[in-house]
Amino acid sequence: MKLDDYLKDVKTMAVSGHIRPDGDCIGSVLGVYNYIRKTHSDIQIIPYLEPVPGDFLFLPGVDKLKRANKFDTTNYDLFVACDCGDISRLGDSGVYFTNAVKTICIDHHETSGHFADINYVFPEASSTCELIGEIIDNDKIDRDIAECLYTGIVTDTGCFQYNSTHRSTMEFAGELMEKGIDYSFIVDHVFYERSEKQFRMLGVAINNAELFDGGKVIGSYVTLDQMKKYDAAPKNMEGVVSTLRSVSGVVVAFFMYPTENGEYKVSARGADDTVDLSKLAAEFGGGGHKRAAGFSLDGDDPKAMVSMLAEKVAPAFEEK
Amino acid sequence: MKLDDYLKDVKTMAVSGHIRPDGDCIGSVLGVYNYIRKTHSDIQIIPYLEPVPGDFLFLPGVDKLKRANKFDTTNYDLFVACDCGDISRLGDSGVYFTNAVKTICIDHHETSGHFADINYVFPEASSTCELIGEIIDNDKIDRDIAECLYTGIVTDTGCFQYNSTHRSTMEFAGELMEKGIDYSFIVDHVFYERSEKQFRMLGVAINNAELFDGGKVIGSYVTLDQMKKYDAAPKNMEGVVSTLRSVSGVVVAFFMYPTENGEYKVSARGADDTVDLSKLAAEFGGGGHKRAAGFSLDGDDPKAMVSMLAEKVAPAFEEK
Repeated sequence: MKLDDYLKDVKTMAVSGHIRPDGDCIGSVLGVYNYIRKTHSDIQIIPYLEPVPGDFLFLPGVDKLKRANKFDTTNYDLFVACDCGDISRLGDSGVYFTNAVKTICIDHHETSGHFADINYVFPEASSTCELIGEIIDNDKIDRDIAECLYTGIVTDTGCFQYNSTHRSTMEFAGELMEKGIDYSFIVDHVFYERSEKQFRMLGVAINNAELFDGGKVIGSYVTLDQMKKYDAAPKNMEGVVSTLRSVSGVVVAFFMYPTENGEYKVSARGADDTVDLSKLAAEFGGGGHKRAAGFSLDGDDPKAMVSMLAEKVAPAFEEK
Repeated sequence: MKLDDYLKDVKTMAVSGHIRPDGDCIGSVLGVYNYIRKTHSDIQIIPYLEPVPGDFLFLPGVDKLKRANKFDTTNYDLFVACDCGDISRLGDSGVYFTNAVKTICIDHHETSGHFADINYVFPEASSTCELIGEIIDNDKIDRDIAECLYTGIVTDTGCFQYNSTHRSTMEFAGELMEKGIDYSFIVDHVFYERSEKQFRMLGVAINNAELFDGGKVIGSYVTLDQMKKYDAAPKNMEGVVSTLRSVSGVVVAFFMYPTENGEYKVSARGADDTVDLSKLAAEFGGGGHKRAAGFSLDGDDPKAMVSMLAEKVAPAFEEK
């Protein structure tokens, strides 16, 4: 499929992505937006998205993003849904989808619902941004478009690390690099940069960290007082559990922080499949994947709670 | 050039790399070694290298690495020097270079001396491992060879981040991924993994970190007592200064730790060229690059020394 083939009689179009947009969602929406602006300047295109996290505010076209109005009955000639497998995940922009003359969905989610007129859906793809690379005219990709698509690929592949990364992903990323983007900056900015609060919370978590089972399990936490000391919020806990997991020899990492309702939110990460963390999470009413799961715990002694979790997974290591 | 063309009358060969080998050096030496073993099993090949850091002990063939003996006068038919631009950088294996019938150098260092009979030297290349990919028969690359070469590329490009990464780098890495290597593991292991001591030292450094110049400069340190508490050595400080630099808004990061001779060793990193850190380092008898430099400082109050360094670079930010 080629996107250009569907643009012949299109005068107005909308492009949108899922609620709480991440890098691949933002990159793909802005990638399509910038591509249409460049190659079909006669088409009026509006990009709709919920507010984007600060890490992505550098992307070209981000200032053109509009919030959807769920009462707006505009009939676009074409609606393109990016990185989204379900009309409900479009949030307020779902109304434009419903009212559009024609709809296209570009997505790589396993659970994608093929809910549009044309569905370009490949779950094995690294990212929606890589899929967009397949359906647009690559000779027309300029620096702006390349920045958007590269950012999406980098976000959804963990910087070419996750096993969704294929030879095609590397080849397309290489092509984008040649469009003059500052890929060093993008990786730094999207991947390695931490806010000062995140940095401080990481320090607290390292200080509170305890190793169990001869170093195969690590657990840590931050307390409400420690969060208050640095004026930190739950969003400042991002990346902490990954850093815990990165300690040599660690197979399972737990990290917990208090939430407003007095519970602790637990993130669990596994380096391999020794422990099925989704099952463990399910025991506590949570969920997730084998190697990445989350749940909530009641209690007021996080140190003891971490020990309890370590004891729960200990049998998995004894059996080996 | 094709390596195979130089192997016709070769019965014995040595392959070696520079002293204090890093990932690209080890990957390229073992890449060549495994390639020859697979494709020219009639050739007797010995890989020489100084002891390799633990991160690379997973590489196939690492158990075959030998220490060179500088008094050994063996005349190899062919000597291949990898990632090394100068005979002195070959260390003890230089003797085999001198005595060899024919010598080849494969290198990407700017300063490479073209000191061999045949020099395949391209400073713009991402890595010596990428260059090896250009001179061997890629159809014959198996999983073992691919693991070695991929590891070298990942190490020398900062996981495809540094601006030495080109489209060709991405394309070759994509090709290697298809050889069945566990690239997720390699990146984790070579890049993100930290020893427990490194992890503890990072926690201490975050705790001691102070921001200056409205967050443009960050400085931190660990003391001798803090190192003793975790039984940490200088090598456990690796990665700390990069984590300091990754704080949002930081342009210059300083990190210092005490050495045996009572001085503090300072690492400095810059996010851009606002401060030429090589010049700053030169003031204190050190050296390095614009954005990454090191030097030593006398003193016993690291907190005050960090403030002094922050004051020294402050004018660069005021001028802007």
